[in-house]
Amino acid sequence: MALHGKNRIGFELLAASEEFVHSYDPKAGKALDKFYLATEDEVALALDKAAQAFDSYRYYSGKRKAEFLEAIADEILALGDELIETAMKESGLPEGRIIGERGRTMGQLRLFAQLVSEGSWVDATIETAQPDRQPLPKPDIRKMLCPVGPVVVFAASNFPLAFSTAGGDTASALAAGNPVIVKAHMSHLGTNELIAGAISQAAEKTGMPDGVFSSLNGRGSSLGQALVKHPVVKSVGFTGSFNGGMALYRAAAQREEPIPVFAEMGSVNPVVLLPGKLKKVAEEVAKQYAGSITLGVGQFCTNPGLILGIAGDEMDTFIRVLGKEIQAIAPATMLNEAIHKSYQEGKKKMLEQKGVQLAGAAKDEEGNFLGVPTVARVSGADFLSNPGLHEEVFGPFSLVVTCSGKEELREVILSVKGQLTSTIMAEENELSDYQEIVYAAANIAGRVIFNGVPTGVEVCHAMQHGGPFPASTDGRFTSVGTDAIRRFARPLAYQGFPEDALPDELKSNNPLGIWRKVNGELTREAVAGEVYI
Amino acid sequence: MALHGKNRIGFELLAASEEFVHSYDPKAGKALDKFYLATEDEVALALDKAAQAFDSYRYYSGKRKAEFLEAIADEILALGDELIETAMKESGLPEGRIIGERGRTMGQLRLFAQLVSEGSWVDATIETAQPDRQPLPKPDIRKMLCPVGPVVVFAASNFPLAFSTAGGDTASALAAGNPVIVKAHMSHLGTNELIAGAISQAAEKTGMPDGVFSSLNGRGSSLGQALVKHPVVKSVGFTGSFNGGMALYRAAAQREEPIPVFAEMGSVNPVVLLPGKLKKVAEEVAKQYAGSITLGVGQFCTNPGLILGIAGDEMDTFIRVLGKEIQAIAPATMLNEAIHKSYQEGKKKMLEQKGVQLAGAAKDEEGNFLGVPTVARVSGADFLSNPGLHEEVFGPFSLVVTCSGKEELREVILSVKGQLTSTIMAEENELSDYQEIVYAAANIAGRVIFNGVPTGVEVCHAMQHGGPFPASTDGRFTSVGTDAIRRFARPLAYQGFPEDALPDELKSNNPLGIWRKVNGELTREAVAGEVYI
Repeated sequence: MALHGKNRIGFELLAASEEFVHSYDPKAGKALDKFYLATEDEVALALDKAAQAFDSYRYYSGKRKAEFLEAIADEILALGDELIETAMKESGLPEGRIIGERGRTMGQLRLFAQLVSEGSWVDATIETAQPDRQPLPKPDIRKMLCPVGPVVVFAASNFPLAFSTAGGDTASALAAGNPVIVKAHMSHLGTNELIAGAISQAAEKTGMPDGVFSSLNGRGSSLGQALVKHPVVKSVGFTGSFNGGMALYRAAAQREEPIPVFAEMGSVNPVVLLPGKLKKVAEEVAKQYAGSITLGVGQFCTNPGLILGIAGDEMDTFIRVLGKEIQAIAPATMLNEAIHKSYQEGKKKMLEQKGVQLAGAAKDEEGNFLGVPTVARVSGADFLSNPGLHEEVFGPFSLVVTCSGKEELREVILSVKGQLTSTIMAEENELSDYQEIVYAAANIAGRVIFNGVPTGVEVCHAMQHGGPFPASTDGRFTSVGTDAIRRFARPLAYQGFPEDALPDELKSNNPLGIWRKVNGELTREAVAGEVYI
Repeated sequence: MALHGKNRIGFELLAASEEFVHSYDPKAGKALDKFYLATEDEVALALDKAAQAFDSYRYYSGKRKAEFLEAIADEILALGDELIETAMKESGLPEGRIIGERGRTMGQLRLFAQLVSEGSWVDATIETAQPDRQPLPKPDIRKMLCPVGPVVVFAASNFPLAFSTAGGDTASALAAGNPVIVKAHMSHLGTNELIAGAISQAAEKTGMPDGVFSSLNGRGSSLGQALVKHPVVKSVGFTGSFNGGMALYRAAAQREEPIPVFAEMGSVNPVVLLPGKLKKVAEEVAKQYAGSITLGVGQFCTNPGLILGIAGDEMDTFIRVLGKEIQAIAPATMLNEAIHKSYQEGKKKMLEQKGVQLAGAAKDEEGNFLGVPTVARVSGADFLSNPGLHEEVFGPFSLVVTCSGKEELREVILSVKGQLTSTIMAEENELSDYQEIVYAAANIAGRVIFNGVPTGVEVCHAMQHGGPFPASTDGRFTSVGTDAIRRFARPLAYQGFPEDALPDELKSNNPLGIWRKVNGELTREAVAGEVYI
């Protein structure tokens, strides 16, 4: 099926502009289809439709929203091979990865469907009245989470499905009851068009209002800024670079009505190798990490870009084996030209810094935008004195830091900025000797891993994907897992309301059977006793 | 006991500055004691001590933090009459109010003590491993809330106890495990000194680290800005004016590492009078609201500054009775000179606007900084065309808007900005006819009240005190009630950690007996079955 290249604005397909861009096949190095950039009128229409849709969609029951989310998953699957081929072509990623990512995307949609269908996510909290309390009567107060309004989602380059058009941000924002406007990523406009069509199809089939979803083509600096600055927009989800995320964050904070921007901006994800572990299995750990560093051409926000240990024979063994392993891994095409260019420049700059030595690099090959796996080493002292070494090189690169001892290791950990993850590779029995190190690693990160690799972000209730700044703009929230819905909801309290006028979630007889905190106790029971309103 | 006028920096009392200010008795119109402004060195020391204290305090158990909070409540009570007299003198508020507010302050501290002693507030979420899952094994992940770091609290003028030095912001930040630095409010420096001494005493008695609490004297524009911009500070609590809150918010957002400012900036708290209610009890409602408008000289963030209804005989009756009631209420001294000046100017400006008519005012009397209760009326059309009428006049003033019908009433509600509260005065049986009105009122506010008054903010689990901007900088959080603790905590996930290295809250056997979400189900039981890590 040929792609139409238009903007999807609610249930309409529009392309009044004469300005267009081409999608691109990074592996073959050739232009693909034509996509029209959204005009100002089209942007205004999408915003207007979103505001209109919010007026009804915000009151849809959890069950209805679940039907919509499930239908999106079904429609995505129904796109079949065309989706897989388009995403592979546009991203340069292999079939297995894209099929896996489609599964993850559908899994996320179904998980949020389950969450809102069950309904307890609204954190219903009820305090019943005490009319006779002294010195003042206590009123009946009941609180629950409700949606905030239209959400703008910036699709991510490195997850063309799971963190893009129908990815975690979209799924959680829709689940909470908010219309979504997606700014398509320039790196996979065809994939976006297919997915946006699937969402629109699902919305029509399940009776959602026009404008509950739109997808626009355009540049971050123009379309992106315009969306974030518009008064109708109440929240923003973003996954991408530090500069991109901060540009949106600053624009949103300077609005007359500031709004939150949940930007997940990646990090270097330090890995701490403790001596006992290295003594036992230095080679094994090196092999494990060669795999993690180069997974998906190193294009994960959780890619381990920094490996820390204490200088010595075991550490040398680790570095030697890691270097050897890295040499044997074939370079692969990166997501797009800009990412490849920035990888080349970042790596070059890193290798020129004082004290940095190459520890191993794969052979360069013929091919487009190849990311050549590379590892380097530097001393703890040099690392501490050079903040340039703390920066992320997005791609299959990792810097190994050899520290003089436990104290310097702790200093190095605390010197790096906020991180999505940190990892401790250790024998269980050495943890008590290194408690300060474990504490330090936990305190700088949103997720701390023991004897594993940071890549691979499980979509579940317990996931925290979001760390202290600059890993994210707001480390109090996660962009992966069910708690991601909390970004797009706010509490609303009802005081002294009659039963009939309360939302079902807050009615005394608990018709939805959800978990609620009633007078301080979690329960799924109806509110007991006489209720004074 | 004479006041020393010094800054409390951890366990030290310092006053190296030659710059000082006097506290002030607004009723008597005379200067009281001398207070030294914090020097740059003293500010730096307080920040340094807070950072140091965080390194240990963050790991204190809920039980130990509860002891500290309980001890603060005890020490505040032990201040006895000196506290009551000082607060009365500095605020101009009557004894009953100050004694009530002390009770509320102690109640808040004990409520947070109970919350962290019980422990479930950390939202522990556990997903156990599935090593055999296809296509990839599922890791063991466990998440809980942990403290964020030193918090700066700006004491509020209108609650010299309950939202100041040991108020809700301080109590919730300490409960979460964060050191607190208070910027004392210039309006009650003596009250601050006494309370700060009580907190310090409690900290020493219960073995808290030096620097877990400091209190500094200084101006918002210098000390306040310096604190908010300092990298050690990770979060800010503020209650006060829109301009004051936004100055801090903008400064915090422009930091290299942006931090959240939870500013509760007040609102006009619209009250909607539905016709059925007025038909039945217009006089009663008018009397009830005359009381609410003038409570505490109108100096509550939930003061009803805007009353909306549909034009007609009943509305006229309401306005007439309200005007008469207001005339009979004696003016009283406002909190300070600045608040009084701003009340006078705001009221004057309001009464000069097109279409605004005086509906009743109390007689002016001899006295210092008297807030004269005043109500005015205006048509819905004039209100809609003049955004100046939407602004808050902080004090005992309320504007009554008479709308031409249901549709204009809805328009008026939706035209006002975000609010802390909105109120519906109605007969139960007319709610279904006015559903759009109820929806509109709920959508602009953090708390919607049925047949009550917005003043009186219950401290409980279900309270939401924080609304859409500009009522608060972040309507997703509350500054009153137990959920206020969420402002000062972030989730941290542990992946694959051995039992011994996990915090107690996340250990499989649940030694603290807290509520946890285990594999999607809320339970207080230990994690069942074999646990693969």
